[in-house]
Amino acid sequence: MEVVCLDLEGVLVPEIWIAFAEKTGIERLKLTTRDIPDYHVLMNGRMEILREHGLTLKDIQDVIATIKPLEGAKEFLDKLRSITQVIILSDTFAEFASPLMKQLGWPTIFCNSLEIDEKGMLSGIKMRQEDGKRKAIEGLRSMGFRTFAAGDSYNDLNMIKTADAGCLFRAPENILKEYPHLALHTTYEGFYNEIEKFVKKGN
Amino acid sequence: MEVVCLDLEGVLVPEIWIAFAEKTGIERLKLTTRDIPDYHVLMNGRMEILREHGLTLKDIQDVIATIKPLEGAKEFLDKLRSITQVIILSDTFAEFASPLMKQLGWPTIFCNSLEIDEKGMLSGIKMRQEDGKRKAIEGLRSMGFRTFAAGDSYNDLNMIKTADAGCLFRAPENILKEYPHLALHTTYEGFYNEIEKFVKKGN
Repeated sequence: MEVVCLDLEGVLVPEIWIAFAEKTGIERLKLTTRDIPDYHVLMNGRMEILREHGLTLKDIQDVIATIKPLEGAKEFLDKLRSITQVIILSDTFAEFASPLMKQLGWPTIFCNSLEIDEKGMLSGIKMRQEDGKRKAIEGLRSMGFRTFAAGDSYNDLNMIKTADAGCLFRAPENILKEYPHLALHTTYEGFYNEIEKFVKKGN
Repeated sequence: MEVVCLDLEGVLVPEIWIAFAEKTGIERLKLTTRDIPDYHVLMNGRMEILREHGLTLKDIQDVIATIKPLEGAKEFLDKLRSITQVIILSDTFAEFASPLMKQLGWPTIFCNSLEIDEKGMLSGIKMRQEDGKRKAIEGLRSMGFRTFAAGDSYNDLNMIKTADAGCLFRAPENILKEYPHLALHTTYEGFYNEIEKFVKKGN
């Protein structure tokens, strides 16, 4: 049996922080792990900006409720779930993910959670564990699964390297230049075919 | 973050082999892990009976396509998936589970697979690993998750013992007598409330 592990933002839904930055007009919130590989540095910066602007979790959740999955993502995921097991591995937070997971038909997601202070402001992050995407792949392999991993960002590279197979999906130029040996897909059709090939090989 | 691991047959859907036995009238196929704790002994017996009767995978799948989830199971699962992550841990086979997973909205399932010979007969089983339910809980704990496990059969007891918390659901008399310290639920409402309490405790 096999499990397919997919990154969330950029692969199935838009980058949540970018959508939020566009709504609020705060340009500095547009940076993602594509730009700043160290996730803690990135998150501390984001929380500082939110505090400066007095923005609460509720403000962010109101924006997320208006975000739709990427075009074709739900159909891709439905089709994939009919031939194999899928788990979304994301560095986002349960508080942010829930309205998007609902739209995607409640796929399983392994992510992190937030600390919220008495004013409803983001005060910290509760990472499930360091390097959680890679460790999730290791855990799944220890359960006897063949694993396939795919994503678009720096924080996906460890899980792709650790998995039995994997590819990039709509990754930016800087990652493609650094990792030219990884297969790249830019359409859900090609992406699905690559994964289906992996699934069939195991049967 | 937490993951809730549920047994499939008897908890969300009827016992597949019993439904098959009723359709075909083969009384001996009604035995389950409730009756014979050793799964390999049980499966070898089942495959021998199927061979005697010339029954193929297709015959079994035709019956499974007519089985419905237990009354209230889909609603229970939908509600649960909106507050936490759920993984079904089952000793059934991917070849059997798929039509039932579709009806349940494609929850993630970790199970086993079958070997099929050139005549379409079951010739063997491919267990993902021995004691797979327990090892799945251990793997999820190694990923930093709090875990809750629930089931109704002998093969669920190791995962319930290994998880941070758990309970029985509609378990038979012999298990209740052996494990009187485990909480038992017989309605989806009580079952949901027990799990919700566990989820809220972590936040």
